[in-house]
Amino acid sequence: MAKRKYAVILGNLGNTCDRFCSSYKTNPSTAEMLKKAVAIPRVEAIELVGTWDITPQNAKEMKKTFDGCGKKCASIIPDLFADKIFWKGSFSSKDARVRQHAIDYTRRMAEAALTMECDLLNIWPGQDGYDYMLTADYEKERAWLCEAIATLAGEFPQLRFALEYKPKEPRTHSYIARMGDTLLLAAEIGCKNVGVTIDTGHSFNAGENVSEAIVLAKRAGGKLMHMHFNDNYTSWDDDMIVGSIHGVCYIELLYWLDRCGYAGYLSMDQYPYREDAAGAIGESIEWLVKFDAILQANRKKIDNLVALGDAVETSRFLRSVM
Amino acid sequence: MAKRKYAVILGNLGNTCDRFCSSYKTNPSTAEMLKKAVAIPRVEAIELVGTWDITPQNAKEMKKTFDGCGKKCASIIPDLFADKIFWKGSFSSKDARVRQHAIDYTRRMAEAALTMECDLLNIWPGQDGYDYMLTADYEKERAWLCEAIATLAGEFPQLRFALEYKPKEPRTHSYIARMGDTLLLAAEIGCKNVGVTIDTGHSFNAGENVSEAIVLAKRAGGKLMHMHFNDNYTSWDDDMIVGSIHGVCYIELLYWLDRCGYAGYLSMDQYPYREDAAGAIGESIEWLVKFDAILQANRKKIDNLVALGDAVETSRFLRSVM
Amino acid sequence: MAKRKYAVILGNLGNTCDRFCSSYKTNPSTAEMLKKAVAIPRVEAIELVGTWDITPQNAKEMKKTFDGCGKKCASIIPDLFADKIFWKGSFSSKDARVRQHAIDYTRRMAEAALTMECDLLNIWPGQDGYDYMLTADYEKERAWLCEAIATLAGEFPQLRFALEYKPKEPRTHSYIARMGDTLLLAAEIGCKNVGVTIDTGHSFNAGENVSEAIVLAKRAGGKLMHMHFNDNYTSWDDDMIVGSIHGVCYIELLYWLDRCGYAGYLSMDQYPYREDAAGAIGESIEWLVKFDAILQANRKKIDNLVALGDAVETSRFLRSVM
Amino acid sequence: MAKRKYAVILGNLGNTCDRFCSSYKTNPSTAEMLKKAVAIPRVEAIELVGTWDITPQNAKEMKKTFDGCGKKCASIIPDLFADKIFWKGSFSSKDARVRQHAIDYTRRMAEAALTMECDLLNIWPGQDGYDYMLTADYEKERAWLCEAIATLAGEFPQLRFALEYKPKEPRTHSYIARMGDTLLLAAEIGCKNVGVTIDTGHSFNAGENVSEAIVLAKRAGGKLMHMHFNDNYTSWDDDMIVGSIHGVCYIELLYWLDRCGYAGYLSMDQYPYREDAAGAIGESIEWLVKFDAILQANRKKIDNLVALGDAVETSRFLRSVM
Repeated sequence: MAKRKYAVILGNLGNTCDRFCSSYKTNPSTAEMLKKAVAIPRVEAIELVGTWDITPQNAKEMKKTFDGCGKKCASIIPDLFADKIFWKGSFSSKDARVRQHAIDYTRRMAEAALTMECDLLNIWPGQDGYDYMLTADYEKERAWLCEAIATLAGEFPQLRFALEYKPKEPRTHSYIARMGDTLLLAAEIGCKNVGVTIDTGHSFNAGENVSEAIVLAKRAGGKLMHMHFNDNYTSWDDDMIVGSIHGVCYIELLYWLDRCGYAGYLSMDQYPYREDAAGAIGESIEWLVKFDAILQANRKKIDNLVALGDAVETSRFLRSVM
Repeated sequence: MAKRKYAVILGNLGNTCDRFCSSYKTNPSTAEMLKKAVAIPRVEAIELVGTWDITPQNAKEMKKTFDGCGKKCASIIPDLFADKIFWKGSFSSKDARVRQHAIDYTRRMAEAALTMECDLLNIWPGQDGYDYMLTADYEKERAWLCEAIATLAGEFPQLRFALEYKPKEPRTHSYIARMGDTLLLAAEIGCKNVGVTIDTGHSFNAGENVSEAIVLAKRAGGKLMHMHFNDNYTSWDDDMIVGSIHGVCYIELLYWLDRCGYAGYLSMDQYPYREDAAGAIGESIEWLVKFDAILQANRKKIDNLVALGDAVETSRFLRSVM
Repeated sequence: MAKRKYAVILGNLGNTCDRFCSSYKTNPSTAEMLKKAVAIPRVEAIELVGTWDITPQNAKEMKKTFDGCGKKCASIIPDLFADKIFWKGSFSSKDARVRQHAIDYTRRMAEAALTMECDLLNIWPGQDGYDYMLTADYEKERAWLCEAIATLAGEFPQLRFALEYKPKEPRTHSYIARMGDTLLLAAEIGCKNVGVTIDTGHSFNAGENVSEAIVLAKRAGGKLMHMHFNDNYTSWDDDMIVGSIHGVCYIELLYWLDRCGYAGYLSMDQYPYREDAAGAIGESIEWLVKFDAILQANRKKIDNLVALGDAVETSRFLRSVM
Repeated sequence: MAKRKYAVILGNLGNTCDRFCSSYKTNPSTAEMLKKAVAIPRVEAIELVGTWDITPQNAKEMKKTFDGCGKKCASIIPDLFADKIFWKGSFSSKDARVRQHAIDYTRRMAEAALTMECDLLNIWPGQDGYDYMLTADYEKERAWLCEAIATLAGEFPQLRFALEYKPKEPRTHSYIARMGDTLLLAAEIGCKNVGVTIDTGHSFNAGENVSEAIVLAKRAGGKLMHMHFNDNYTSWDDDMIVGSIHGVCYIELLYWLDRCGYAGYLSMDQYPYREDAAGAIGESIEWLVKFDAILQANRKKIDNLVALGDAVETSRFLRSVM
């Protein structure tokens, strides 16, 4: 089995807000956030959001900083969601200039990734979707989305493009919404270096069982490239500490990550509105370590339970290990 | 704190079906189900469904059987949901004869309860509600429901009438749907012996936090009379083994049951479609025993966490005890 | 029947944002927003958010402006949700100083209401609730909430305090969550001038049928004081144009508003992230006008359908009028 | 555009039940149901459930009956959900003999389809899925499901196999759950004659926008083979009359059916628990006729709105036509 490698998204250590309150905390500098991130036990790598944390201008400097503290860059996440220009979509915008801008901007982020010696772009086109019925051309807009990613993936064969799906928010409907449609999109794009990021919370929101989503990605040709972790109350992306609400599902998904040969990062993606950020992120990692220890000690038993299909036996087992 | 008293609903040990498949198992006799129920460790009492398990005719005999095996009758649940006559409502039916029949039938069940030396009727009027908009007179029908229960509660002051709420199924909308409206109904009925049953799964379906529902019932005058336990995936009443999906919420709710002075039964209410029924019910009890042990060993710590309001500290604690 | 009186919330005409993007539009001045609001056909009154739109300092001036354009102030909504000080609750904060501040601040808003000759405070304590289990004392915090509102309502008997419920957002769980618990709270407060605001979208989120919520408020003693209108996809507060997704439910709720003697405003409460605000709000009003015309022309028929309870007949009717 | 062809599922005219009540109506004979189905205006074709309505033994006779009343057989739906042998899955059962039985049985239904001159098998393997985590081997079981359908589709190249997806019920998780994963399965099966059935209610349950699902099926190679219609309150498969809750989405989906070149049946699939079945089904057809008339009269306008992307304009249009 692959050794677990834990990562965090830098911006999770920053300020938080929502549509009602513009600032729950204060705005730390990138350096302050990095210091906090580095101090979280077991963190080996960090994800950076484009423009916020990393630009073509500061990439070399940032690489030195990372080297200095012995951390890797797990991914770069181009900002396709916070820039006002993408308010009605990026790669699938009805406006051709916006689509071109999204491609050009992402290209620069790809170059920054190369500078960072990071081989993965985490693509979350959160504004690509729609809100009202009869206001979107699902056919054309999906085709544009497809073409844009194909273009980028073709230009950067040395990078992996991991599409992060989420059923809704900020739009009421996202184009990259569930594991199934994301794999179809990846197949349509037809590039070996395009795959999928699972965010556990997004998968819960989609009504999926994360473990089954992992298996779908494997059957589609080993398409799982990256993992984001958090917990929620099922219906919305609450971005909470792992283990706050659910437990069993994390043990199960670690088991299936191993069976499907996943060797990527386990990266924390939370939004600690009112919590100490480093504390909340650190807790998620420790819960995963705990769940993983249960798995490591009981893999054979779990193999048997999965083959047996007896809910009472599974319950008895879980009760004995949790 | 009150000693935990575990109970089961007898019918949970019987056959299962759904709208597609009329029988997943076989139809055991009442005697066979009783034998299985009695054999589940820690079970002190049993709930009986009216007509199915108990009738005015067999009540004396049943009492002897219960005495013989040293079990109490935790409640009688009048069958207001499976009898075809109630297909469009019982106490709130638009048909006055059906409403009268529901009252007369429940009166006989109240008498059976007295024979069983059981002081609690668990009232689940599952058919009372509606499916389509503009097909129900919410005002009149709620008034009828209110009057019927007031009549019965007035006639049997020595019994407690615990109203079990559930937002939907079998109707798309139930009249007794959430803790809040059930307490309002109890207040309107105005009888000291009318209160509420919480079914944990129904509360999940209603989007409630069970612990908060417990507090609401306390603030409304100590109205929590009975507890049904199971687990589900939130959006539907899957009636699964406790702990299968959720964990923390059971520890929290046991804490609040104690703080609110609950002294009633912890009764298992599951629907083991494809599982060994006694095994599945027994597992739920053992999970609750496990969660309860965590609570008993850490009550003071939990008091502090609840007063503190720091999610990271709460997570750290939970990680240390689960 | 009461004549329909349409209103809007001023802030709906302002900028929009979410937790990802800090500004989708531009920040208009209050005067600019007022000009737009006044120009929306059929608008008779306007709701003002405390601090944002109205302060003790500008209240007299604002009253003159309202008089100048012939509009009434439908309500004042104290800002208990956007001010950072309330990030972990206002009336129910664990911090006694914050609770006191919330009361003091709301008192000033009550005085501003008097200056505006507005008799209704719309209380939406959006930050009062909790996110994680085992981090809140539901009993104490609810008691604080109750006391605070009782204090304010006692001090201003000439004002009505309408509590606006919402199950979640910005917290994962709000203390004022559903119609039932809000009526219980109003009963506990025990002041004649405390009642409820229904926001149709919040009611959808709570899994309620709005019409039934209206009836609950009536049965609890005529407690419905105010109405906010919008539409959504059920699971989240999308704050969209009325009629975008649902239709029948608005006809039904207008019917029940009349049967329950509601004489307050029909006020639009939307969040037009990417839409022309005045256009989107105006559309909601026109949809309600359309649904109301259907009701007015068919009240007797609807009386009969509600008494009959035949979904096929109801469908046939709706098909003939929509 | 293809002419609309309306159909019904025969069993919808039969008895109804749920897990609480074993019979809400009476059990009509197949002949009685057929008589009712034939009498519903605009019905051109009928779907038959295997074993219940059609067997290898009665297929010839049934064909004559259909010819006699001038109706076509729109599909045969093998009973993979009500037969107790499939209680833990059919094509994906852990028991090899059950898997073989499912294939053998479906083969007989395929032969019956040929006898009926019907070219479509609607495959709804409702029991194929799982309830509890850590009780299923998602990889193996999906592979079995895939192989079984590939076997059947290979044997009957003259038939189309339309896979009907549904996220849950009767299992808490179905293997054929959403449009995306069903298209992936179809791609993996690799047979031209395997595609998808959309049931509008199942699509709502999956959190999909039906129109977007239609586009996904087109982009995957023209895979939409069949349509089932009903309405629900979003979170559960209530199987209600079309138009009871939602409206706009049906106009939109008819538009996209045309744009994607759908030429199949619009078949009603309801479960009228307490309604007159023929009346409820007939209402659904008349609502679709109404929505279709709006579309036909405004296709060009809708083309423009979909290209424009202005929710206010779309609202104005919808208000003018509904």
